Amino acid sequence: MYDYKSAFEAAVGKVREEGRYRVFADLKRVAGRFPRAVRRREDGSEQDVVVWCSNDYLGMGQHPVVLDAMKSAVDQAGAGAGGTRNISGTTRWAVDLERELAAWHRKEAALLFTSGYVANEATLATLQKILPGLIIFSDALNHASMIAGIRHGGCERHVFRHNDLEHLETLLAAAPKDAPKLVAFESVYSMDGDIADLKGTIEVARRYGAMTYLDEVHAVGLYGETGAGIAERDGVLDQIDIIECTLGKAVGVMGGYIAADAVIVDAIRSWASGFIFTTSLPPALTAGALASVRHLKANPQLRAAHQARAAELKRRLGAVGIQVMESSTSHIVPVFVGDPVHCKMVSDMLLEEFGIYVQPINYPTVPRGTERLRFTPSPDHDDAMMDALVQAMDALWTRCNVARLPAVA
Amino acid sequence: MYDYKSAFEAAVGKVREEGRYRVFADLKRVAGRFPRAVRRREDGSEQDVVVWCSNDYLGMGQHPVVLDAMKSAVDQAGAGAGGTRNISGTTRWAVDLERELAAWHRKEAALLFTSGYVANEATLATLQKILPGLIIFSDALNHASMIAGIRHGGCERHVFRHNDLEHLETLLAAAPKDAPKLVAFESVYSMDGDIADLKGTIEVARRYGAMTYLDEVHAVGLYGETGAGIAERDGVLDQIDIIECTLGKAVGVMGGYIAADAVIVDAIRSWASGFIFTTSLPPALTAGALASVRHLKANPQLRAAHQARAAELKRRLGAVGIQVMESSTSHIVPVFVGDPVHCKMVSDMLLEEFGIYVQPINYPTVPRGTERLRFTPSPDHDDAMMDALVQAMDALWTRCNVARLPAVA
Repeated sequence: MYDYKSAFEAAVGKVREEGRYRVFADLKRVAGRFPRAVRRREDGSEQDVVVWCSNDYLGMGQHPVVLDAMKSAVDQAGAGAGGTRNISGTTRWAVDLERELAAWHRKEAALLFTSGYVANEATLATLQKILPGLIIFSDALNHASMIAGIRHGGCERHVFRHNDLEHLETLLAAAPKDAPKLVAFESVYSMDGDIADLKGTIEVARRYGAMTYLDEVHAVGLYGETGAGIAERDGVLDQIDIIECTLGKAVGVMGGYIAADAVIVDAIRSWASGFIFTTSLPPALTAGALASVRHLKANPQLRAAHQARAAELKRRLGAVGIQVMESSTSHIVPVFVGDPVHCKMVSDMLLEEFGIYVQPINYPTVPRGTERLRFTPSPDHDDAMMDALVQAMDALWTRCNVARLPAVA
Repeated sequence: MYDYKSAFEAAVGKVREEGRYRVFADLKRVAGRFPRAVRRREDGSEQDVVVWCSNDYLGMGQHPVVLDAMKSAVDQAGAGAGGTRNISGTTRWAVDLERELAAWHRKEAALLFTSGYVANEATLATLQKILPGLIIFSDALNHASMIAGIRHGGCERHVFRHNDLEHLETLLAAAPKDAPKLVAFESVYSMDGDIADLKGTIEVARRYGAMTYLDEVHAVGLYGETGAGIAERDGVLDQIDIIECTLGKAVGVMGGYIAADAVIVDAIRSWASGFIFTTSLPPALTAGALASVRHLKANPQLRAAHQARAAELKRRLGAVGIQVMESSTSHIVPVFVGDPVHCKMVSDMLLEEFGIYVQPINYPTVPRGTERLRFTPSPDHDDAMMDALVQAMDALWTRCNVARLPAVA
């Protein structure tokens, strides 16, 4: 007989050995006081903390316009949607939200999914059913959900070196001219904080007759005049074929979507198992997201404040010689550590001693040897919080003897 | 150059030709008046309807204890979780909910997912990584999400005829004795309404050293003394290795989970891409689900009322000779039509003429030639609603000349 228990123990043991066993921080965010939260320890005791690694980039997750919309939807329509989109689960706010999202990205249509993960997985897998013989060209640093979708369809795929358009062109040139092709990439890469060359990628893709699929989950709400993302900022909304985004980061709620031509959306809607056979988003979430998107469109000053805070944190860390990764040209502030044990240790000390919560980012989320702390300052992270963070980091960098930039070390 | 537009049009055209192009009913449920809802037509006009096909089986989606918990969580902690479980997204209610769910199913641990679909897909795919050489034995009528998970892992798999334990045994006996094996099945099959033989399946599985994986999404909250499902009703909770459920049907909210031994849950938690790399459920959903589960455990009379209403609808339809499918030994009331065009037509007439909303169930959800209407009476569907439904069906069955049972036709 097979020994199941040992196999499960071995799977967990492997993760422990590699220093990447995850202990989740049990948090209760405090609405109206974000980024503050109350952490509950395993013994039940509580600790006030400041969250420095949330993807609620603009604090929309506590904005009254969002919370009021959610509570109003609960009062009006109840808790869950009660079914799939097809079987009694299409709620009015979902319909209105899809229209709003399509208009935001200047596309004919949009389609909601349970999450950004599901949007990527379902869409990329389904495109392979709809376009037989499809060849996908995927950036090396694409998110796990994109990789899942690409793999699940089973099509021919080529990975191009991160943001390397020459490599992409070489691969495209080698593929049959009349085969359907798709270039899949992200705008803001969330772990390095760098931003793709959208215009260049589109140009190369078009030259070889490939469609473009752009993941803007770490950009939507944050870039462009109305917040529609890097594609809006760079003036290429009409040149991207399929845009994929989330409602769980800057929008502050949960859910994912694609925006594209109506016929593309209709085909995905009709063929994607991960869309068809799942309970749809509750009224509270679609209503909250709708209110959030409308607010984001109308308030560019939120985006300006966000960028200013990120720049300020980068400046302050640099001033004490703490190495913010140069890759970042976005709102992401990754601090290089380069060792999984150090990374976890510094993070634990920040939490226990200073009430500063930032998750260590270790393998497999990033390559081994590039372990880092990843800070995401929001407009709600004030000067006092930044002072506390930089002082704590400065003290720990000394105590743990972490390498600093030459200029200051 | 490849003609993308034609390919997308062809994909949509195929669905239209097969008579299964879906037009979603745009609904606004009326909290406190469920199963009533307001339908919005494409021209913007509105119609009051009674929903007869919701999976909110007990109306928990409008229960004050759930709605109050949701609104309170929004007030306390805001809209979204703000991150993955590992990166700032573990909220206190999620932790408490997992403990509550584990206790409900008398397991050591539970793990939340975005949805039941994701729970099935991620868990079944990940088990194949953890147990190399795993062979999965899957019931022929298993849900699309189970099939997706089984396929995505790429392991050897065998499909046994629906509820056919002899066939299952034949397949198990033919597999290598020392290979890891998993029997994956559901308790209540939602389209036929039949219930699996849990004891028999467990017995066969154990005889061949196979683990058991049971999907109870259409049973949890509805069967067993405390509502833990058919496994509780049949006294076999401790003999199922992995139980998978949803928070989006009888619980009335959204989300999915598994419950199992701690080491199994820990391994899945550590290895499942669809769990790790996705934003976690918002506080409103976990708080609402927690309140709902506690209420469901303590109120068996809800389950009794539910069964009584389902039996009553079956009786009333039978009295006018309308054929409720004999397969159903559960709360599902499927009415056989047997033709996709008739099925859609009757459904459209029920909606437009009578304000009765029931979705036609056509291929690929069910096999061709077995098209049906699927009614899901809740304790909130009162006698007057049943009278209206049965009278409307009776009139349409005559008008459309649908076959009736010999005794009455």
